[in-house]
Amino acid sequence: MSQSEHIYPAGRVSLREVGLRDGLQMTKSFPSTTAKRKWIELEYAAGVRHFEVGSFLPVDKYPMFADVHEVINIIAGLSGAHGAALALNKRGTIDALQSGVAEIGCVISASEDHNLANTRRSQNETLAEIDNLCRLRDLSAHKPVISVGIAMAFGCSLSGAVDPKNVLMLMARCYEMGVDMVSLADTVGYAGPSQVAALVKDARKVAMGKGLGVHLHDTRGMGIANASAALDEGVQLIDAAMGGLGGCPFAPAATGNIVFDDLVFLCETKGLKTGIEIGELMKVRDLIQAEMPAETLYGGVAKAGLPLGFETRM
Amino acid sequence: MSQSEHIYPAGRVSLREVGLRDGLQMTKSFPSTTAKRKWIELEYAAGVRHFEVGSFLPVDKYPMFADVHEVINIIAGLSGAHGAALALNKRGTIDALQSGVAEIGCVISASEDHNLANTRRSQNETLAEIDNLCRLRDLSAHKPVISVGIAMAFGCSLSGAVDPKNVLMLMARCYEMGVDMVSLADTVGYAGPSQVAALVKDARKVAMGKGLGVHLHDTRGMGIANASAALDEGVQLIDAAMGGLGGCPFAPAATGNIVFDDLVFLCETKGLKTGIEIGELMKVRDLIQAEMPAETLYGGVAKAGLPLGFETRM
Repeated sequence: MSQSEHIYPAGRVSLREVGLRDGLQMTKSFPSTTAKRKWIELEYAAGVRHFEVGSFLPVDKYPMFADVHEVINIIAGLSGAHGAALALNKRGTIDALQSGVAEIGCVISASEDHNLANTRRSQNETLAEIDNLCRLRDLSAHKPVISVGIAMAFGCSLSGAVDPKNVLMLMARCYEMGVDMVSLADTVGYAGPSQVAALVKDARKVAMGKGLGVHLHDTRGMGIANASAALDEGVQLIDAAMGGLGGCPFAPAATGNIVFDDLVFLCETKGLKTGIEIGELMKVRDLIQAEMPAETLYGGVAKAGLPLGFETRM
Repeated sequence: MSQSEHIYPAGRVSLREVGLRDGLQMTKSFPSTTAKRKWIELEYAAGVRHFEVGSFLPVDKYPMFADVHEVINIIAGLSGAHGAALALNKRGTIDALQSGVAEIGCVISASEDHNLANTRRSQNETLAEIDNLCRLRDLSAHKPVISVGIAMAFGCSLSGAVDPKNVLMLMARCYEMGVDMVSLADTVGYAGPSQVAALVKDARKVAMGKGLGVHLHDTRGMGIANASAALDEGVQLIDAAMGGLGGCPFAPAATGNIVFDDLVFLCETKGLKTGIEIGELMKVRDLIQAEMPAETLYGGVAKAGLPLGFETRM
């Protein structure tokens, strides 16, 4: 069994907490390392096993990720837990490989305009960097999983509609280079569920059994509906953040990631076993709210509780 | 063409604004008749044609519906607009028939416990009242459409799981008695999209071309996902309220109806033509917020705006 198959077992969906990375990119404040540890330990106790832990980015600009090595070590100390860290440039790539993190994520945009605006590189230049990362990974002793998020895969806030064929072509290139997991990202919350279903269906044909996930934002209220569509088409990984933490870089007042707690509920209503106990999960919300009181946490299950007899029905 | 086929044309979905009825049942304040008129006229100008206008209930207990006759007349004055009013007892039934309203709605619960708690009647007694209403309707000159909402169709907050067979049996009884439209109501937001898809699929077989709708609440964040599932299975009518107005009678802090504006966006992403202009619709939100400043309005599209190039994509 490859490292990737170990982290993302076939035939079931893995739900990943990205609140510690994507969730912190737009917040007014961020938790201390001690609070991050409590967050991870509480969420691990509730059954969560997949965490995005931070980014390898300049500490002066991104102080919320200054403790990324410590957070990687916290995860490494929890049996069966998997950490992924983002590396967005050459320096970050080297740091990430040296950190021993189990998964290194990088990003390419489905829109050339957005790729240029976001990274000052063309898509081809970014592909070359991903290729380089895969080669360096192959040379490493611990051979971390390499994942790629395809940003703006469902439409771009700079250039509008995105041709699904281009997304599928980028995916194919990534898998060829040795990428283990590709996530289709609705970075700005443009997608609806029919679009998600159609692209995931086609993407599965390109993936041919390799890792395929979605990273969805709830910017226009479609997040859980889009997750439901992606689950119906058999994705292996869905990103979400407790309380929907995080925002949208292109719509200041908008909501961000899909709500982790509601996503777990969605999966359970579908009969998909997540291994996550929703009651326990709510303790993580309480911690986040206490640690970052200025942040609005979203979510329906947190307000209304579980349906009567829900656990026995599962 | 029957009156019902005229109001709910086959082969397309009708989106009904229920903010003026269900949306007002739990609010701290309610709009004046003048404000209701503005609300309806603005929403009509945006393209909305279906409205729940109020209930025939004792005015001392339900002052928000004291002007139901005037609201019915406002709708009647708008070409192509359809109003539905709720009648929940014998007196209300007579009043509703005399009012000339185009559609009279009533409710039966899929759960005997809830039917008793809510109305102090057994399901059989409620069915007899619905039968009586259908007979009186047949004797009337204007023959209003009769619709029935099956409350707790996806689970009950008093008794837990509800057997779908019982829901389908109630539906069959209603159609036999002459009911034109049956709506499956997720009164307390217990459903997930797979459950909605399964029940709607079976319900269509029972309906055999008669009217079939859903009334969904977003109590646990599944509202839009559930609407998406219902649309995929071909429902003719979906209820929603601007800004998600309304709450849950059994979970005081919870969200209520699905967000009308986001529902329109959902339909448009699916390529379903609603005839509703989302930009115009936002003016209704502004009016509601101004008129009822203490109410929280929900919704993603209102915060984030439409995707770049959205209208040209449609």
